[in-house]
Amino acid sequence: MPVIRHRLDSKVLAGNVLGDPTERDLHVYVPPGYDPNGTTRYPTVLAITGFTGTGGMLFNVDPLTESLDHRLDRMIAAGALPPVIVAAPDCFTRVGGNQYINSTGTGRYEDYLVDEIIPFVDTHYRTIPRGQWAVFGKSSGGYGSIVLGMRRPDVFCALADHSGDAVFELCYVPDFPAALDAFRDAGGPAAWLDRYWRDPNHKRKEHMKPLNIVGMCTHYSANPEAPAAHLHADWPFDLETGAFRPDVWARWRQWDPVEMVAGHADNLKKLRAIYVDCGTKDEFALHWGARALVAELRRHGLTVVHEEFDDGHMNIPYRYDRSLPLLVDAIRATR
Amino acid sequence: MPVIRHRLDSKVLAGNVLGDPTERDLHVYVPPGYDPNGTTRYPTVLAITGFTGTGGMLFNVDPLTESLDHRLDRMIAAGALPPVIVAAPDCFTRVGGNQYINSTGTGRYEDYLVDEIIPFVDTHYRTIPRGQWAVFGKSSGGYGSIVLGMRRPDVFCALADHSGDAVFELCYVPDFPAALDAFRDAGGPAAWLDRYWRDPNHKRKEHMKPLNIVGMCTHYSANPEAPAAHLHADWPFDLETGAFRPDVWARWRQWDPVEMVAGHADNLKKLRAIYVDCGTKDEFALHWGARALVAELRRHGLTVVHEEFDDGHMNIPYRYDRSLPLLVDAIRATR
Amino acid sequence: MPVIRHRLDSKVLAGNVLGDPTERDLHVYVPPGYDPNGTTRYPTVLAITGFTGTGGMLFNVDPLTESLDHRLDRMIAAGALPPVIVAAPDCFTRVGGNQYINSTGTGRYEDYLVDEIIPFVDTHYRTIPRGQWAVFGKSSGGYGSIVLGMRRPDVFCALADHSGDAVFELCYVPDFPAALDAFRDAGGPAAWLDRYWRDPNHKRKEHMKPLNIVGMCTHYSANPEAPAAHLHADWPFDLETGAFRPDVWARWRQWDPVEMVAGHADNLKKLRAIYVDCGTKDEFALHWGARALVAELRRHGLTVVHEEFDDGHMNIPYRYDRSLPLLVDAIRATR
Amino acid sequence: MPVIRHRLDSKVLAGNVLGDPTERDLHVYVPPGYDPNGTTRYPTVLAITGFTGTGGMLFNVDPLTESLDHRLDRMIAAGALPPVIVAAPDCFTRVGGNQYINSTGTGRYEDYLVDEIIPFVDTHYRTIPRGQWAVFGKSSGGYGSIVLGMRRPDVFCALADHSGDAVFELCYVPDFPAALDAFRDAGGPAAWLDRYWRDPNHKRKEHMKPLNIVGMCTHYSANPEAPAAHLHADWPFDLETGAFRPDVWARWRQWDPVEMVAGHADNLKKLRAIYVDCGTKDEFALHWGARALVAELRRHGLTVVHEEFDDGHMNIPYRYDRSLPLLVDAIRATR
Repeated sequence: MPVIRHRLDSKVLAGNVLGDPTERDLHVYVPPGYDPNGTTRYPTVLAITGFTGTGGMLFNVDPLTESLDHRLDRMIAAGALPPVIVAAPDCFTRVGGNQYINSTGTGRYEDYLVDEIIPFVDTHYRTIPRGQWAVFGKSSGGYGSIVLGMRRPDVFCALADHSGDAVFELCYVPDFPAALDAFRDAGGPAAWLDRYWRDPNHKRKEHMKPLNIVGMCTHYSANPEAPAAHLHADWPFDLETGAFRPDVWARWRQWDPVEMVAGHADNLKKLRAIYVDCGTKDEFALHWGARALVAELRRHGLTVVHEEFDDGHMNIPYRYDRSLPLLVDAIRATR
Repeated sequence: MPVIRHRLDSKVLAGNVLGDPTERDLHVYVPPGYDPNGTTRYPTVLAITGFTGTGGMLFNVDPLTESLDHRLDRMIAAGALPPVIVAAPDCFTRVGGNQYINSTGTGRYEDYLVDEIIPFVDTHYRTIPRGQWAVFGKSSGGYGSIVLGMRRPDVFCALADHSGDAVFELCYVPDFPAALDAFRDAGGPAAWLDRYWRDPNHKRKEHMKPLNIVGMCTHYSANPEAPAAHLHADWPFDLETGAFRPDVWARWRQWDPVEMVAGHADNLKKLRAIYVDCGTKDEFALHWGARALVAELRRHGLTVVHEEFDDGHMNIPYRYDRSLPLLVDAIRATR
Repeated sequence: MPVIRHRLDSKVLAGNVLGDPTERDLHVYVPPGYDPNGTTRYPTVLAITGFTGTGGMLFNVDPLTESLDHRLDRMIAAGALPPVIVAAPDCFTRVGGNQYINSTGTGRYEDYLVDEIIPFVDTHYRTIPRGQWAVFGKSSGGYGSIVLGMRRPDVFCALADHSGDAVFELCYVPDFPAALDAFRDAGGPAAWLDRYWRDPNHKRKEHMKPLNIVGMCTHYSANPEAPAAHLHADWPFDLETGAFRPDVWARWRQWDPVEMVAGHADNLKKLRAIYVDCGTKDEFALHWGARALVAELRRHGLTVVHEEFDDGHMNIPYRYDRSLPLLVDAIRATR
Repeated sequence: MPVIRHRLDSKVLAGNVLGDPTERDLHVYVPPGYDPNGTTRYPTVLAITGFTGTGGMLFNVDPLTESLDHRLDRMIAAGALPPVIVAAPDCFTRVGGNQYINSTGTGRYEDYLVDEIIPFVDTHYRTIPRGQWAVFGKSSGGYGSIVLGMRRPDVFCALADHSGDAVFELCYVPDFPAALDAFRDAGGPAAWLDRYWRDPNHKRKEHMKPLNIVGMCTHYSANPEAPAAHLHADWPFDLETGAFRPDVWARWRQWDPVEMVAGHADNLKKLRAIYVDCGTKDEFALHWGARALVAELRRHGLTVVHEEFDDGHMNIPYRYDRSLPLLVDAIRATR
């Protein structure tokens, strides 16, 4: 059984504002032949999932989609990838997912990853440890990867940002009309979220846009002073009238990877590999986000592997076949 | 035959950058019993159409939609509306429609309406003339109505803004991803527009978003210095990478009715009637635009009739039954 | 003014079950240079519209779609089409349109066309008369064209069926689920139709499928004995349970052009021209209907011009540039 | 660990025409406190999944959807359900899923379930054995449940058909246009299926309709004499022209549960419980299928629990909270 499920009790997440559990799953994949008592050390990769996801889902059974453990087994068996450890934490929250940053609106998830998950894995597995980790993910997980790369080169030496959030005007603003309608119908974002969780079907199509905006707003413009009915966040559109609030939006933009490059270029230069891809039919326009991000990275002298492919945003884990070898090469190169 | 079609040759539009015709249709509805040689003078209303429209369409035959002439005949016969003259000009352009403002990217259409259309009608019909006109329209025509009311209280005394463009972040930004894709595919906005006009089907669904953005950009951020390949306009997203350009967007926002209120409150106070409505399922989120606009108008002490109704953006001329009596009352009250 | 609007009072339609008006518009296009007192006789074509349409709409103003009169003027001026008369009757009904057949559920519209419209035009215009007419239309108008060609070779010598209804399983059955839902919600088809006409917006998207099915059922399986609440028709699915009723469906199929060919092959052989086309992205799958129809026609030894093009079902009058010359050639060849 | 994964090697599936594996997963849930060496025997339920599914998916991790094991644990802990064993086999095939019948086009899956899966579970677990099993599932799994109940009352005493296929005209015919287009584009159904499996994204939206039709056709109108390019099946629409083939469709209809009731009423009367439900917004119109099925069952004197709820076809396992207690009660009642 190459995927081990751990239960970890977090101190970092204690008292989080959403009341999310502090005891969490952590799934760890170890390669064929892994010997916990051996001397070999393995490149180790942090896998962070997209919005509405959790690490364990990467190993789900689905006849139409190769699971991550089968993918890794196949690639390793074929010699396409050196043996590798992959750690997939659970960062799901009541607001529908995670952007993997510290926020008063959700919790200190950057810290959770860096201060609890990675040390745990470094302690219990034969990793090439902290400082030589890579991180990858799709969508919010791609976003988290590039942002963690920018902020924590002390931990990560390589990253893959698959279809990650960027150019927030293009990827988030189009969801606002439906979100504003839903919030108004429910009596505000907190009332909407309560109603959402009471619905036995959490995947109704009409829930997805308001949930996404709830998730993003509690990450990017959290404000402990804001009312609970507003989920302790400021909203970039007036919830009563729809009027745009440029000052709140400016706070979102500070978390847009394209805007963050300039302030983090020195950190990014410490990395050995940056991989960015996106499907050219991405339903959230993230192919434009990727292009803008890559252009900005290159403008700052950084080397990026940028790929595009003929697909949308969903069901594209086959892209990890492209990024994982590159990440592992980067880890091994740094030793 | 109560609708007369005129052909007018415009001086204002001569040399317009798009090469659009200067000889244009003007349709004028006169009420039953109208006598060009009589002494009665009639309230007169300017009708401006939505994007992709032209004045003559208001009188089109359609078993599923009452035409404007039949609507007016019916309302007048029922005593729901006093006899009225309605002038419906053609302001269609190569970029797909009109926002009824002066722009180097399209032409001086505010001037065209105010300096040519209205004087022509005042000269040839028994109007209650310039200064006592009302203006109404839907979508871009609603936008034009509120903006003309703000800018030209010397001409108009009342306006009805039906489902008009407002809060540009909500109504325009969601169209950008598809527009950027289309421009890239064609080799830029000018190349896209050429290709659009070569397609025998100008109404393909996939054309509508890029056409809308072409239309808006040539109105709101025209720049005579910008290259012809960019349609002599600056674009709020980098056409190569999708990166957001806040400076260009700021120019768009200067034309957002919500933002314009503060600078035009004194003008608006000269009006006798402001009517704003929108369906609560508007596909362009213009119900939020209307709410934000109305809130801002009221914040400046203005009186607005604001109505909402259970419908979307299309096929809603039945709403004119609400606004037209209000406009005509306002005209008559001013005498 | 090349398009003349007549008002005709019909005897054939008197007492029609839907209570539709018997006084109807007839629009007639005459070519440039037409002299009612001259000696020239012109090929004459009957234009019948799609569902929800009426003849007058063919001449509507629309900056994005060339009207039929402008199209004919342009083609004649360019020498692409000989001068021609086109008659466009109004056959709209309370069930949303017409299939141009005699039905107790709607009225005797085949008779109306053949016994009233065509004689009127032959009497008042310098036609090449009855027996040498062509007929064309799109969608329901394409359907009407092929069926009139099959049934009335005494009247027509050529036809063009653009995107016409065929293979009823593919083009109609997919609309039944939404129609059944709507009927159930309203309390039956008659109640639904009442509600439909009370809605000021007759073009709401959710109305289109039930309206289509109402229209087809009153044409294909009308039954004077059926209750008024069922619109005097039998329904191919049980309105309470959705159970399929093969016997009623068999009556629909008798009106499927593909099924009708075998019984009308001798009539069709009397025609000089049969033109069939459809866009390969037709939203009602009518490209398959056209293929099946053409295959069946050819299997019976008939000559058909069959064309496909890269477009859908809507906004495709540019296809008349292909068919009209062929129809007029056929008329002229028969003299 | 309450879910045990077995690997079974099937004799029944040996040599299946699709070349699908004969070694298969079987997941078995046992309740808290289950003692393989104890004396207690537990009601046992067969869980069969929807199209594109497999038994193991029922236990997948998803923060937005309670997995079946968590659901059972919760219900049992709350006293809402007696302790129960659930067996969830893998019946996935190369044509995208299973209808759980014997077909030359796929394999003998009814036999596989009845002759291999159930005996295995009866042998290795403390079941209330064969004859007292219940069966449930959603979509194709609902279809399989009602059909297995009709055909094998020797094995099953109760069934729950959640949103199961029925009234094939409503649930399958609407998928044919897209399927015919896809097959034509690929060069036939077998070529399409090859191409499908070569695409790394097996869940592209445009694949779903052709895959569904491939699956149904190989189940309902398989024909060993038909060419391999046609997947050894006859097609109810001519693949070249789209012409409807009533004789092939008649073979599909023999597998429509609504049509099967009359011939299986005696078998159904042997059951202790029949549960049927469907959401009233089912995207495949299966709420109509359920209504027609229930009406036909009742017409034959059968007792059915029929429920409707406000949801669509996807993400509705919360409905099992309704059916499972009823099934288990029926099993216990039969002892």
